[in-house]
Amino acid sequence: MRVSDRIAALRREMAREGVDIYLVPSTDYHQSEYVGDHFKERQFITGFTGSAGTAVITAEEAGLWTDGRYFIQAEKELQGSGIHLCKMGEPGVDTIEDYLRKSLPEGGIIGYDGRSIGISDGKIYKKIAQDRHGNIRNNVDLIGRIWEYRPELPDASAYALDEKYSGESTASKLSRVRAEMKKAGADIHLAASLDDIAWLLNIRGNDVAYCPLVLAYLLIYPDYAELFADRKKFSDEMQADFQKNRIRLRPYDEIYESVKNLPAGSTVLLDPERINDILYHNIPEGTKIKEAENPEILMKCIKNDVEVANIRKAHLKDAVAHTKFMYWIKTQIGKSKITEISASEKLESFRAEQDGYLGASFAPISAFAEHGAIVHYSASPETDSVLHEGKMLLTDTGGHYQEGSTDITRTVALGQITEKEKEDFTLTARAMLRLMNTVFLYGSSGVTLDCMAREVFWKERVNFNHGTGHGVGYLMNIHEPPISFRWKEGKKPAQVFEKNMIITDEPGIYIENSHGIRLENELLVCEDVKNGYGQFMRFEPLTFVPIDLDALIPERMSEEERQMLNVYHSQVYEKVSPHLTPDEREWLKTYTRPV
Amino acid sequence: MRVSDRIAALRREMAREGVDIYLVPSTDYHQSEYVGDHFKERQFITGFTGSAGTAVITAEEAGLWTDGRYFIQAEKELQGSGIHLCKMGEPGVDTIEDYLRKSLPEGGIIGYDGRSIGISDGKIYKKIAQDRHGNIRNNVDLIGRIWEYRPELPDASAYALDEKYSGESTASKLSRVRAEMKKAGADIHLAASLDDIAWLLNIRGNDVAYCPLVLAYLLIYPDYAELFADRKKFSDEMQADFQKNRIRLRPYDEIYESVKNLPAGSTVLLDPERINDILYHNIPEGTKIKEAENPEILMKCIKNDVEVANIRKAHLKDAVAHTKFMYWIKTQIGKSKITEISASEKLESFRAEQDGYLGASFAPISAFAEHGAIVHYSASPETDSVLHEGKMLLTDTGGHYQEGSTDITRTVALGQITEKEKEDFTLTARAMLRLMNTVFLYGSSGVTLDCMAREVFWKERVNFNHGTGHGVGYLMNIHEPPISFRWKEGKKPAQVFEKNMIITDEPGIYIENSHGIRLENELLVCEDVKNGYGQFMRFEPLTFVPIDLDALIPERMSEEERQMLNVYHSQVYEKVSPHLTPDEREWLKTYTRPV
Repeated sequence: MRVSDRIAALRREMAREGVDIYLVPSTDYHQSEYVGDHFKERQFITGFTGSAGTAVITAEEAGLWTDGRYFIQAEKELQGSGIHLCKMGEPGVDTIEDYLRKSLPEGGIIGYDGRSIGISDGKIYKKIAQDRHGNIRNNVDLIGRIWEYRPELPDASAYALDEKYSGESTASKLSRVRAEMKKAGADIHLAASLDDIAWLLNIRGNDVAYCPLVLAYLLIYPDYAELFADRKKFSDEMQADFQKNRIRLRPYDEIYESVKNLPAGSTVLLDPERINDILYHNIPEGTKIKEAENPEILMKCIKNDVEVANIRKAHLKDAVAHTKFMYWIKTQIGKSKITEISASEKLESFRAEQDGYLGASFAPISAFAEHGAIVHYSASPETDSVLHEGKMLLTDTGGHYQEGSTDITRTVALGQITEKEKEDFTLTARAMLRLMNTVFLYGSSGVTLDCMAREVFWKERVNFNHGTGHGVGYLMNIHEPPISFRWKEGKKPAQVFEKNMIITDEPGIYIENSHGIRLENELLVCEDVKNGYGQFMRFEPLTFVPIDLDALIPERMSEEERQMLNVYHSQVYEKVSPHLTPDEREWLKTYTRPV
Repeated sequence: MRVSDRIAALRREMAREGVDIYLVPSTDYHQSEYVGDHFKERQFITGFTGSAGTAVITAEEAGLWTDGRYFIQAEKELQGSGIHLCKMGEPGVDTIEDYLRKSLPEGGIIGYDGRSIGISDGKIYKKIAQDRHGNIRNNVDLIGRIWEYRPELPDASAYALDEKYSGESTASKLSRVRAEMKKAGADIHLAASLDDIAWLLNIRGNDVAYCPLVLAYLLIYPDYAELFADRKKFSDEMQADFQKNRIRLRPYDEIYESVKNLPAGSTVLLDPERINDILYHNIPEGTKIKEAENPEILMKCIKNDVEVANIRKAHLKDAVAHTKFMYWIKTQIGKSKITEISASEKLESFRAEQDGYLGASFAPISAFAEHGAIVHYSASPETDSVLHEGKMLLTDTGGHYQEGSTDITRTVALGQITEKEKEDFTLTARAMLRLMNTVFLYGSSGVTLDCMAREVFWKERVNFNHGTGHGVGYLMNIHEPPISFRWKEGKKPAQVFEKNMIITDEPGIYIENSHGIRLENELLVCEDVKNGYGQFMRFEPLTFVPIDLDALIPERMSEEERQMLNVYHSQVYEKVSPHLTPDEREWLKTYTRPV
């Protein structure tokens, strides 16, 4: 069935339901960043395989809205489909909201499957429809009706995270959340975010690409909880554990009816950014809603000491794998054919050699030469460059291990690179090292500290158009709220850094059609001395992989910055060298030499 | 009349009015930082002369709440008065609110003159009273009744700021404010903040200590305005100008009745942080209130090019005066008797030699040796130290000139100081220079950039417990909102830096009982290059006075930091030397030599 046939089929369903405009977003029912195949409705209806975008279909027109990362790819994939590419953020291009306002006929109906739409978008669509004296239909899954051979909901087994990995029992976590519910004056807590549920119940699974999570919803009451998920995924032992914790298993889909029957007079605590539109609107009128950030978010972000000890182990394995890869590519370039994709596979194979490796923690980036300047580049067979000397390779990759997840970016010179490339590399290394080595008072956030990295760029009148870092989950989502490094304040004050939080430090520089450089370490938030001025804090690196000295100009660094690099490299050698072959070890010695 | 007699008289008035607790704050009817003598009610009733504090009187007890700056002074001044000193912020000390909650009898009355109380405090007091089934009386001026020989309201003449100083006509400013009123959906704008009114009407006066302002309230309507102020202060010419701008003059006190008669159905724009409690409550119920920051605040903060050109002139005069003072003290120490106060007077006299000098822009700080560690030290005849070699003198002073206002802090070594003092001085100089030389993208605020100064302190595990900088008014308040350098985010995002804003850069270090160091330059926000990354911005110093090389250890600075200092000092020499005597010039040459 071609895309145009699919759209024709969709239009028949729209006509049948009296829907004038139908929206197909990219997410699942849990507002997930990555989704399983079952949820790739937007890909089904447009043929566009990128991770972000929304399709908007009317009786006459079809459009795909996506952002700058995907313009080239989308243009190619939409060819011949009759779907118009709407380049988000480009001058003169309507937003989806603009388009809806212009295209919705008087009294018209906007339709979508509200399970895949967030509350705030739902409100916007409703307002637009009402302004036209029309309405929304948010409970129609028209793609579901026309999608033959749609992948089933995943049925992969879940597994329990032993306390030697989680560091805290489910009972303890539930009791902490219940204490927060009480504080908020809530009797019930509704959670739909998969990572919050997985953390709370110490369960992991395989239902979502790159995220070892289980499709589920959760209702927590003062005395028991209800987990809405496919019972078949849980072993008898896990089910017994649930019972012990007074967690009742109910079918995944039943959440929607269950929410309709929440007791009148009770108060339900929910996170408006982590609940879909249908769940929200199914809550009966007599039930009070207390909107707040899920209490699990902050608890999950502050790792416990068991988790931290495990994460260090995972990072050491990852460092060994990545260092072996670096040695391999530095010594193999020019000798055998290596492409972006094969290099990425090789790196994956080094990780796979490590004990307890479970898989990639996100879609790997392997970008050679000018591809490095495309921040979210994803090599495809059509774009897959053959590597050669004289350019740089940027890899932004990570792994899930039983002891935690990693996220690391390194950019390495293959052969001799230009002076300009070296200057840019040195700038990036300085920024990364400076932020990693900063010391701060308790009370600082990612906004307080961002310019420790960014200022060296600004002094050269350059910048990078992304945050300097994000929180990292523990055997979970690689992008984990609520912490980040960013230079502009948000609407709410940023989260203060607490001991045992983990954040990435990843400045970069991107020169279009030439090269891209990014260096990324993960950092652990640690306590430093406490004195009359307060509690001082610092970061400790978790990532121990060399910064490529072939690409560095030490003379462009201050004495202090060189010292930072030398200290870091001596740690890299000390930790990684015992796990290498003699040749690799010799190589590492050279590549971690003091400058 | 002794303080105890005054309190006894107050208690008689309280009994007569049925007031159980009477509050006497420190501010005037305009929430001013500095106040005229007429408003020093709290000083009258307690004898405490510090600038901050609140007196709380009951039938049996009397307390003064003040902060750490004033503990020593207050203790001394309250001796024998029977007034208890309540040290704010000290462990175990009740806040005023705590005290009110504990002391107010059931059904009791809290009384105060609501003209000197802000809206939010008023709300708190009302809540406390109502919780006790009591009430407030916010319209009683009991101090006014008992204060014999109370200074009259000031009657100093006002003067018009010519457009060659203001750079923008009153008509233009009014029309900009009216445009903002329209945007906010308001028909009327009520302003009570003296600096906003003075800026808007291009008037200055002498009604408030250190601030060349005129006591006034303002009501702006779409077609005219009403200025509530003492007509006698304005010359015929000024009155004619008011008329031209359709500004009607009305007696100062009439604002309260006038506000009661605001037309029903109209909307009045006001700033809840810049209106007193009585004004607010006098607005009739049928009038809608639109609460927002006064639109004048941001307009006033962004100086126009005429103002900037004038400010540069004022700062040059100030730099000449301050450099002469530095030469004088460096060469006179040990030769004649100099005290903190006489040094301060000498500095003032150098300023007075400059054309167009109008007076001090705030209460000068002149703090020798360990006094420097008291952040808001104010020398009194009792504390006035005699200066001697071997210690440092910290002066934080400023002047009003016809062309603008200045604020500068320098710390100078008298004779040989200790290595530790030099280390601390060098740290402070590095922080000040680093922030002054930072480059940033448009969109940055004082929160984005604060750690450019603070990080060098944090690396040494020290800190300073005040903001790194504040906005500066133009022939007006020396502390001018809404900009500041601070490391913690506030409830609202901080104001983004715009071209032509002026901010101080004043890190410091304070070692109790030993020494205090602060260095303060004023900075002008400037545009730098604009390129594909955005509009870059930088600071330009306005202050040109040497950083004392006798106190500096150049080896403790990075090459880049020494370069910053050398560039700055060469500018100091270039600008200031033409205005010095040959001896002074020779001295300046040495004290601005490259390091």
